[in-house]
Amino acid sequence: MPTVHVQLFKGRTADQKRAAAVAITEAVVKTLGGNADTVDVIFHDIERHDWATGGVLWSDKAPAPHQAPKAP
Amino acid sequence: MPTVHVQLFKGRTADQKRAAAVAITEAVVKTLGGNADTVDVIFHDIERHDWATGGVLWSDKAPAPHQAPKAP
Amino acid sequence: MPTVHVQLFKGRTADQKRAAAVAITEAVVKTLGGNADTVDVIFHDIERHDWATGGVLWSDKAPAPHQAPKAP
Amino acid sequence: MPTVHVQLFKGRTADQKRAAAVAITEAVVKTLGGNADTVDVIFHDIERHDWATGGVLWSDKAPAPHQAPKAP
Amino acid sequence: MPTVHVQLFKGRTADQKRAAAVAITEAVVKTLGGNADTVDVIFHDIERHDWATGGVLWSDKAPAPHQAPKAP
Amino acid sequence: MPTVHVQLFKGRTADQKRAAAVAITEAVVKTLGGNADTVDVIFHDIERHDWATGGVLWSDKAPAPHQAPKAP
Repeated sequence: MPTVHVQLFKGRTADQKRAAAVAITEAVVKTLGGNADTVDVIFHDIERHDWATGGVLWSDKAPAPHQAPKAP
Repeated sequence: MPTVHVQLFKGRTADQKRAAAVAITEAVVKTLGGNADTVDVIFHDIERHDWATGGVLWSDKAPAPHQAPKAP
Repeated sequence: MPTVHVQLFKGRTADQKRAAAVAITEAVVKTLGGNADTVDVIFHDIERHDWATGGVLWSDKAPAPHQAPKAP
Repeated sequence: MPTVHVQLFKGRTADQKRAAAVAITEAVVKTLGGNADTVDVIFHDIERHDWATGGVLWSDKAPAPHQAPKAP
Repeated sequence: MPTVHVQLFKGRTADQKRAAAVAITEAVVKTLGGNADTVDVIFHDIERHDWATGGVLWSDKAPAPHQAPKAP
Repeated sequence: MPTVHVQLFKGRTADQKRAAAVAITEAVVKTLGGNADTVDVIFHDIERHDWATGGVLWSDKAPAPHQAPKAP
């Protein structure tokens, strides 16, 4: 507590999630108070074919040219 | 995207949430990548009488002596 | 952990939630194992005008005759 | 079932939600199959000070000039 | 925003989800207002052995005779 | 309705979930009222590398000596 749920595109590495868990926990404690031991962070991987924005699944969107696609 | 849901005890001020939104968004971008503009953070206030740990509602728990209660 | 979220119609008393927190925690520990202290139960009150079944808001449904309405 | 959760800014009228429940239920049945009676739609009102995009709470964002603000 | 979460039985095809994303987005914009580009739809596949109604997992329910089972 | 979502570590058997669905449904009906047929229980398996407490992923935690690890 607090409990933080992160919905994101599938594909992040374990190291990215490991770092995110630390950084989000620190951000929560620093701004909302409480003890880090009571903070839960849960990652929910979402497939690109399961997330639509503007009615279009992300698996159907063309990546933007000359840049990494901005993805959830 | 990513979308971050924060479940926490009711009672934080607008300033605390304002600071948490900034800090969590930075933590997410720094560790998971992407663009800050695509990060949503949603706060869900939970009343102490709506959250139980170990079968006991937090509204029924005695605060720990000599310290602020650790709360979600 | 496990964390149990209960979505229900607004209107239950604190005593009902208190009893539900105990009973659900016991049910979880008995069948899934683990320690009661690690079980969180969170209640989410939903207004009858915010829940539809079959496309009809529950605030618009006529109560069944001769019986208490079955409500979430 | 399916169960549809709609997270939106607080402020829609009961008539808007009533119409949305009908339209979403029809959209689900038409595209995913099944029986309308098994579809639940649940609305979750979110305050503008509880939703941030790009690290900024929507209650702090200036409305766009000459147009209605695009809001969740 | 709004963000729509659809919990449904695993097994729908990509085409069904593609059509559902369009239809749900249209339903939301038409009834709740706003811009289609701000609407997210996220599908959450649930296995039949992870969803119980009346205390019985759907993987344990006998299909109704002479009709397709009504499933989430 | 009510709808109960259980977030737990991946690894429970079908028999454990079957028993949990029965026990949780009974607990809900007994304490909150209503009809068992209107109670949904949905299990959400979470991988140990997707759940952090105190900023540490459970896949990185050393099991406690001489006892089964307490896990979500």
